[in-house]
Amino acid sequence: MTAAPLSRAEFESRLRQIGVDRYHDKHPFHDRLHGGHCSMAEVQAWVINRWAYQSAIPMKDAAFLSRCRDPDLRRIWRSRIEDHDGSVTEGGGLRRWLKLAEGVGLCPDYVASGQGVMPATRFAVEAYVRFVRDEPLIAAMASSLTEMFAPAIHTRRIEGLLEHYAFANPDTIAYFRHRLTEAPKDVRFTLDWVLTHATTRPDQEAALAALRFKTDVLWAQLDALWNGYVEGRIPPGAWQPGEGQLQRPAA
Amino acid sequence: MTAAPLSRAEFESRLRQIGVDRYHDKHPFHDRLHGGHCSMAEVQAWVINRWAYQSAIPMKDAAFLSRCRDPDLRRIWRSRIEDHDGSVTEGGGLRRWLKLAEGVGLCPDYVASGQGVMPATRFAVEAYVRFVRDEPLIAAMASSLTEMFAPAIHTRRIEGLLEHYAFANPDTIAYFRHRLTEAPKDVRFTLDWVLTHATTRPDQEAALAALRFKTDVLWAQLDALWNGYVEGRIPPGAWQPGEGQLQRPAA
Repeated sequence: MTAAPLSRAEFESRLRQIGVDRYHDKHPFHDRLHGGHCSMAEVQAWVINRWAYQSAIPMKDAAFLSRCRDPDLRRIWRSRIEDHDGSVTEGGGLRRWLKLAEGVGLCPDYVASGQGVMPATRFAVEAYVRFVRDEPLIAAMASSLTEMFAPAIHTRRIEGLLEHYAFANPDTIAYFRHRLTEAPKDVRFTLDWVLTHATTRPDQEAALAALRFKTDVLWAQLDALWNGYVEGRIPPGAWQPGEGQLQRPAA
Repeated sequence: MTAAPLSRAEFESRLRQIGVDRYHDKHPFHDRLHGGHCSMAEVQAWVINRWAYQSAIPMKDAAFLSRCRDPDLRRIWRSRIEDHDGSVTEGGGLRRWLKLAEGVGLCPDYVASGQGVMPATRFAVEAYVRFVRDEPLIAAMASSLTEMFAPAIHTRRIEGLLEHYAFANPDTIAYFRHRLTEAPKDVRFTLDWVLTHATTRPDQEAALAALRFKTDVLWAQLDALWNGYVEGRIPPGAWQPGEGQLQRPAA
């Protein structure tokens, strides 16, 4: 016998509880980053590895479009790709991330090349793209709901970076400011869609599992970062501090 | 213009150099394990997480068979599945791994369930299965060549476990003893195949990259293990020491 479906309110509350229990705002790397305790090499390692995640997001969303038969759903979902990729001239979130890369003293072409990204980061990111391409539609959509928890961490990050790091200014942190309006727009649509369409208990459980999976994807990236660059156990082939630095023109 | 192909000897030497440079026998976790410095909780964490890798190997090899059009190649490659899965009654390498699990005080059903495996372990293992399913045939085959480096580490492991841990005996370490003959049998065939068939420089480079990728898969698992259970930063949802213990009958 299948368990009774959760009420809409209870289902939403269990989705939100996943954020409380295991969103990566609880990871010690973020305290370190936002509290101003990261060395510049640690910040650079974060920017390089987080690029691997950022730059895969439009591919993840394209993978979603590639298996979504509903044109209306595709039309709405497409705005996620537009947010990150932007237009040819303007560039969107990805180009804003490269502004941050430049701001922290990295050559943006080096960062964009993906060279030096830790294998563990790539494995986590690829697992996410595969999940969204292959899993049932509701799970694929629900995995994006970590965006429910993102504005709080972005607000803290903007404050923390501006307070503690010389590289932080409106230009270098523009990525995070944009996310403050983009993520809630995505969440309004997707949370409502998941709450409305996951009406059986197995579908609701699949949505909850998908969101937990996504928190795993984010957490694993910070564990790898901590191990590599805070503890200094950099895996073979990964970025070494000093590589990929921005060559500033002589004064 | 494409670079000239490497000679067979030079190609083999570059493959072997990857083992020297980045095989996971260089990872500090293995020194700790083989030197008798692991706590039983660390050994248990290793057995639980390494199960995720072991148990995916027959699926990886089935993925290879699923895209291999040459019946002769399939007939030979199939022995890898037989080594790990064994027969219904005898069970092969996987059942030998569960003997080790029991030996270190874990409930074999718990280990076999895959519960408690760290997400980072799963991401690395799934990347390997995907690689073998999707990448060109030569790369898929070359990624298995870490088996060239395995007998040395298995020999050290057998000695180290027997010397330092009460749980080690012929029954619990049978998995490793079998690998001492299985892996060289696989390597003899596959190394010759790769050296013979990768005759252009791009194919040779793809084989070298595949072997590097595979060392990344192995290394990332030990980094996650170290971070989680040596440093004690266990990711959300992963095995906590004390869980999944073997219930021994009262004396």
